[in-house]
Amino acid sequence: MTRTDAELIVDEYHRAWTSGDVERAMTYVADDIVCRAPGADLTGKEAYGDFIAGFAPSLVGIADIATFADGDRVALFYYPQTATTTTAPAAECFTIRAGKIAESVLLFDRLSFGPPEGRR
Amino acid sequence: MTRTDAELIVDEYHRAWTSGDVERAMTYVADDIVCRAPGADLTGKEAYGDFIAGFAPSLVGIADIATFADGDRVALFYYPQTATTTTAPAAECFTIRAGKIAESVLLFDRLSFGPPEGRR
Repeated sequence: MTRTDAELIVDEYHRAWTSGDVERAMTYVADDIVCRAPGADLTGKEAYGDFIAGFAPSLVGIADIATFADGDRVALFYYPQTATTTTAPAAECFTIRAGKIAESVLLFDRLSFGPPEGRR
Repeated sequence: MTRTDAELIVDEYHRAWTSGDVERAMTYVADDIVCRAPGADLTGKEAYGDFIAGFAPSLVGIADIATFADGDRVALFYYPQTATTTTAPAAECFTIRAGKIAESVLLFDRLSFGPPEGRR
C-alpha cells in the first residue's frame, strides 16, 4: 500500500515527538497551526510546541492502534504509555496544508492520565 | 467515492444512536463487542448498549469533523453537542467483523463533558 504524502509527514512528526525530539517534530508543523486539545484551544506553533513538550517527557512507550489517511487528512489512534496508564488511548486528526500540519484535533481523557489538578 | 461496507455499517449505527434510536443502533453491534471507553472497558452488547443509552439523551446536536475507512476499520471524529459543550470532540475507531461492530475504541475527555462526579 502506498502511503500518502500527508501520511508520511504525520508519521515523521509522530515518530519525532514520541521519541522525545519535540524540536524536530515542530519542523512538520505550520507556524499558524490551530489545535483543539482537551480543555485548551492552541493557536500557533509556539503554544502547540509548549503543549507537546509538556507531555512528551512523561512518555515511557507507545502502542499503535490504527492509522488512517484520506487526502490531506490523517488520523492516528494510539496508546501514549506513561507511569500512570498504558491503556488510555489518544487520537489525533491532522489536516496537512503546504506540507505542514495546519490543523489538529487531539483527543485524550485527562482523567485517565492523572488527577485533574495535575494537568492544564 | 465509493464507501466501504464497513463505512456504511458505521454510518447507519452512528445515525441511529445520535438520533436517539439506541435500539436500532445496537442491531449493528456484535453480541461480544469489546469497547474501550474513557474510564471503562465494556464487554458485550448489553453493557455497551447501556453505556450509549446513558449518554444519548443528553445529545442536542452533532457536528461532523472527519470520517476515515480502511478495510474493516472505520474512524469517526465529531462533536457530540450537549447542554455543557458544543466544542469538545469525540473519536471512535471501529473494527467490523461479519457485518457487525466487533471492537471500538471510544475517546472523549470526560472533564469537557461535565464534572467528573457526574459521570462514570
